[in-house]
Amino acid sequence: MQHAFDATIAAEAVGRYDFAARTSPAYANMVSPFGGVTAATVVAAVQSHPEALGSPLALTINYLAPLEQGDWTLALRPLRTNRTNQHWSFTAHQGETAVLSGTAVLGLARQTWGENEAKPPAADAPEAYPVFEFPEFATWAKNYESRFIVGALAAEPADDSTSTLWIRDNPPRPLDHPALTALADTFFPRVFLRQGSYMPAGTVSLTVYYHATKDELAAHGEAHVLATARAARFGHGHFDQYGQLFGQDGTLLATTHQLVYFKDPK
Amino acid sequence: MQHAFDATIAAEAVGRYDFAARTSPAYANMVSPFGGVTAATVVAAVQSHPEALGSPLALTINYLAPLEQGDWTLALRPLRTNRTNQHWSFTAHQGETAVLSGTAVLGLARQTWGENEAKPPAADAPEAYPVFEFPEFATWAKNYESRFIVGALAAEPADDSTSTLWIRDNPPRPLDHPALTALADTFFPRVFLRQGSYMPAGTVSLTVYYHATKDELAAHGEAHVLATARAARFGHGHFDQYGQLFGQDGTLLATTHQLVYFKDPK
Repeated sequence: MQHAFDATIAAEAVGRYDFAARTSPAYANMVSPFGGVTAATVVAAVQSHPEALGSPLALTINYLAPLEQGDWTLALRPLRTNRTNQHWSFTAHQGETAVLSGTAVLGLARQTWGENEAKPPAADAPEAYPVFEFPEFATWAKNYESRFIVGALAAEPADDSTSTLWIRDNPPRPLDHPALTALADTFFPRVFLRQGSYMPAGTVSLTVYYHATKDELAAHGEAHVLATARAARFGHGHFDQYGQLFGQDGTLLATTHQLVYFKDPK
Repeated sequence: MQHAFDATIAAEAVGRYDFAARTSPAYANMVSPFGGVTAATVVAAVQSHPEALGSPLALTINYLAPLEQGDWTLALRPLRTNRTNQHWSFTAHQGETAVLSGTAVLGLARQTWGENEAKPPAADAPEAYPVFEFPEFATWAKNYESRFIVGALAAEPADDSTSTLWIRDNPPRPLDHPALTALADTFFPRVFLRQGSYMPAGTVSLTVYYHATKDELAAHGEAHVLATARAARFGHGHFDQYGQLFGQDGTLLATTHQLVYFKDPK
């Protein structure tokens, strides 16, 4: 049986650069579907394009308006192909409403000096931590197995916005660039943690840099990813989030930065 | 006399959403002009637009091909205006060559709960550190006064890619969103620090989130910014950089994330 993730991100090519996509109730969130699966749909479409050069290096996706449950259309535009990288832009619509915009960079892995400078946060094996039960309204979260080391959702305000957790698709699914994209957006809004309560919040802009090669992702397989994220500043209706996603052996798979809108609870 | 920064970022409106810009030899770098001033030009153009709503919240700019010294054209496209934010995309060309693409989000500051969670790195007053002399080829760096606390360019490899410095425009200039944008790109490539040598390197994609309000920037004035940046992973021809820029009183003004291309030295 096809994994719900694969069913949801499968956009149909309907033109040279145009795709027809559809949201899935399985990934519903409070208002719009989980943004990570929307971003993953874009990444899968770019990767699947016959003109694609190599693997994803960078993605920026902006959420312009709430995506409603239903059909949406994705328009990719190739901007430039260099010797080892390739630039795309995209927009998405529901009817006449522009709902997404962004850019993607693909590239070929080149042999160079390398080092994994960032060290993963201290953590025991995934099984050492219980599976976290998200509240009912976070339907999308049922598609992930989340085991928090620090910073689980709680009813008490926290003085630090860091969450660190082991996470993977539920049921498990081999890691690839679309799945890694969605994982980069699975951190619930940091303001929930700081305030110890829920409030309206949504991603405005999400950037993911892919450090893992295709081979590293293939080697990772269905294992848990060690994910950590933190905000730097809250105020004037927004906050940021910077995150890192590591493989089991401490390989840094991706870094991510996002800007989030929020409103004070009534 | 007009500051070189203002002269360089001053694009002329030549259509409802189109601008004519020109590089300046004052901000020359090894190949293309300093990318920070290019990004600042885009931010200034969006801000200056009669349809602009509020102040910059987020910018992503992709460097598609080396910008040559000379004229370039900037095409802004408004995508959506919401009640409190506004989404733009843009592309830039030199002749027929697409050289830049990206997105910008503007917004109105709303009164909400806030906190400056990120703490600035430890540092004495700017005057406690000598002004750093960049090598001759980094012409653009003469437009900044850089005083390194840690991680200045050196001939020895370092085992940590962190640079922390006090920096401001030279001569001093009041801080605003374009200047803050450029400052977010002033960190020299982290691979130079790790390798203790120069090599071909250039920004592929740069994202800046603006945490400072207009009033905070006005209060900052011509003071130095405390800037810190670090890479998380190097490999396969790329590395990332995450940075934070603080005001004198520890206010977090901006966070930034960029993906950089590099080649091993011959």
